[in-house]
Amino acid sequence: MALVVQKYGGSSVADASCIKRVAQRIVATKKAGNDVVVIVSAMGDTTDELLDLAQQVSPLPPGRELDMLLTSGERISMALLAMAIANLGHEARSFTGSQAGVITDSSHGRARIIDVTPGRIQEALGNGQIAIVAGFQGVSQDTKDITTLGRGGSDTTAVALAAALEADVCEIYTDVDGIFTADPRIVPTARKIPRISYDEMMEMAACGAKILHLRCVEYARRFNLPIHVRSSFSTKEGTWVVSDPDSEGTEMEQPIISGVAHDRSEAKITVVGVPDKVGEAATIFKTLADAEINIDMIVQNVSAAATGRTDISFTLPTTDSSTALTALKKIQDRIGFESLLFDDQIGKVSLIGAGMRSHPGVTATFFAAIANAGVNIEMISTSEIRISVIVGQDEVDAAVTAAHHAFNLDADQVEAVVYGGTGR
Amino acid sequence: MALVVQKYGGSSVADASCIKRVAQRIVATKKAGNDVVVIVSAMGDTTDELLDLAQQVSPLPPGRELDMLLTSGERISMALLAMAIANLGHEARSFTGSQAGVITDSSHGRARIIDVTPGRIQEALGNGQIAIVAGFQGVSQDTKDITTLGRGGSDTTAVALAAALEADVCEIYTDVDGIFTADPRIVPTARKIPRISYDEMMEMAACGAKILHLRCVEYARRFNLPIHVRSSFSTKEGTWVVSDPDSEGTEMEQPIISGVAHDRSEAKITVVGVPDKVGEAATIFKTLADAEINIDMIVQNVSAAATGRTDISFTLPTTDSSTALTALKKIQDRIGFESLLFDDQIGKVSLIGAGMRSHPGVTATFFAAIANAGVNIEMISTSEIRISVIVGQDEVDAAVTAAHHAFNLDADQVEAVVYGGTGR
Repeated sequence: MALVVQKYGGSSVADASCIKRVAQRIVATKKAGNDVVVIVSAMGDTTDELLDLAQQVSPLPPGRELDMLLTSGERISMALLAMAIANLGHEARSFTGSQAGVITDSSHGRARIIDVTPGRIQEALGNGQIAIVAGFQGVSQDTKDITTLGRGGSDTTAVALAAALEADVCEIYTDVDGIFTADPRIVPTARKIPRISYDEMMEMAACGAKILHLRCVEYARRFNLPIHVRSSFSTKEGTWVVSDPDSEGTEMEQPIISGVAHDRSEAKITVVGVPDKVGEAATIFKTLADAEINIDMIVQNVSAAATGRTDISFTLPTTDSSTALTALKKIQDRIGFESLLFDDQIGKVSLIGAGMRSHPGVTATFFAAIANAGVNIEMISTSEIRISVIVGQDEVDAAVTAAHHAFNLDADQVEAVVYGGTGR
Repeated sequence: MALVVQKYGGSSVADASCIKRVAQRIVATKKAGNDVVVIVSAMGDTTDELLDLAQQVSPLPPGRELDMLLTSGERISMALLAMAIANLGHEARSFTGSQAGVITDSSHGRARIIDVTPGRIQEALGNGQIAIVAGFQGVSQDTKDITTLGRGGSDTTAVALAAALEADVCEIYTDVDGIFTADPRIVPTARKIPRISYDEMMEMAACGAKILHLRCVEYARRFNLPIHVRSSFSTKEGTWVVSDPDSEGTEMEQPIISGVAHDRSEAKITVVGVPDKVGEAATIFKTLADAEINIDMIVQNVSAAATGRTDISFTLPTTDSSTALTALKKIQDRIGFESLLFDDQIGKVSLIGAGMRSHPGVTATFFAAIANAGVNIEMISTSEIRISVIVGQDEVDAAVTAAHHAFNLDADQVEAVVYGGTGR
């Protein structure tokens, strides 16, 4: 008998008939002899509707009250799901984040989990009950106030509870079949990845693959908890996210490249004419950090000897742009830079693969593919298992398609590489 | 500085603009130098919408999960109200029933309050904050599960918290100006009652006056807590419910009759041909009690000597009728009664007044007024301060109007009786 943690997102519980279907799936897992803990998000558009109500009464609602408001969404979906399961003849108990023992810090709207004490969940499982837990929410250790975990919160709740309960697997249900080598809407021949490492999945998530949030993968990696990303519309195997994807005892070598990710949500700011003195760059990024802005890529040009000045470009979430520009303008006189350039018509294309560590020439192949597609590269950043480039936003599709093809990720060839044992 | 507890019902917080208006009223009370604790119901039709959702997933949802679902309604309204107050520059904190220390038994859907430990509310007040508390909900002492208090639950929450906090007054806001001598929709000349005793108010509530629930008046009476029923649409004084309405130091005597209440929500069941043996009636009412049915009035005919059989009639909430009829049919053979008659076309008209204790002839005047209106009386029941009769449902308005007039309750005359000192 295994302990299975399942997470269903808002689209999986969008209305009563969806909830009933999810209930059947949960009961089937229980009937197969498993203990089952379910983490559920708010129904469909509930969160947006609640945010709209909040806006109607206050342009800038206090974080504590906004969390109190938003957490009612999961309370509705989890109670309905427990009822639907009861209606199928199985006993289910719903628990708020607080009741489930999800203890967080006090940062309303983006709280971090600092402990999980799932005593009530274990008690319910001990009684043969299915436990339904509200995703996205917890209770602050200091103030005992209700908190929310921010983006990717429900996935993180699922992984955190699974880790605390020492579950055998955390199943993340979504509306696609798993993690693909590229977004199938851009590359129709993209292939489902059967197994992927935590490291690669983290790079994929950080580079714009939206199926799993970076934060939940980090959490799973720390506790070595297997994640199974799969469709709530089929019983097909999805993608397993594990520490060692090649440990299945086969002779296959790891593919060089796992996939191509893209992200259109970033913008680029260039600080023009920064005096080339020690500490100027540090002041700029300290200012941005104080404004709680997450910087992604950074490029500093070689200083022009004639002027003693340099340009510094960086990318950041487009939604943080105005905050960043405001913060930078405040220090313009102190730093003495000349001007700020802003560009939100950019996109990031990333190649991810643990295999590139031991395969020289990956970078060259990637750049050549993009160049052959007629796409200009504006910025470059690399890690051990990733290469990212910034291109024009309307050139993202062409770059993704070219890279996907250059590394033989398209379904026809790739099936042979991975399963056919070509020895690559 | 006083401690004021205010309760706003669902229609007072039906949408964003209503919530903003209520927020202004709360802030005005705070600015006048009071500590303020607010109990709030779910917005408008929220509870009905949630019940509808529950019905869609399960015809008979478990009580625990239904409570979990329904309590999300107050969570939404209280958070929005706290935001609206914050937007007016005052600090407000919302608290769930559990956070406010409303401890109940485990009877989901109709939990009884067994303790109130409002430590967090007192802390908020100590910090100069306005406390917003979810009405209608609590947490069970044994299981730590979320419970709801059933009908009149938000009023009861308000009175219970006011008692625990030793508040100076509990203000119940509603959409009418107070308690009237009769329903103004039936008797346009009905008059607002300025002060009424707990006992009379309890009889009014039990007899169908819908403004205050019996349960909350009982609670206030036990703790001798003044209730002020008033309109959320005006600043006029409403009706004070207190232990001794005549203690204001005036020379006025108490009016004989406080008001006329009516109730169309009951039905009548007659058990025909019950063998006139010891214990048969007891068996019938034991059966109904076991089915958790609240009986109101009971009439047993004098036994017909020829047959040795009698008829027993009783009234009960119409919604309990089918349960009662089913339970009675099960014991028909054992009891040996002949048949069951059912009538849901009845109405109850009640005359309430502490003054009738010391004024003979009230009953005669009441019956004469009803007879003169051409209305037939089907059943009668009395208490020290109340007379109730059952009449045909379509004759309720005529009976109420006749009784109201017979006791000079109509506004023109009554103003003289109460304020003019006629010495009656």
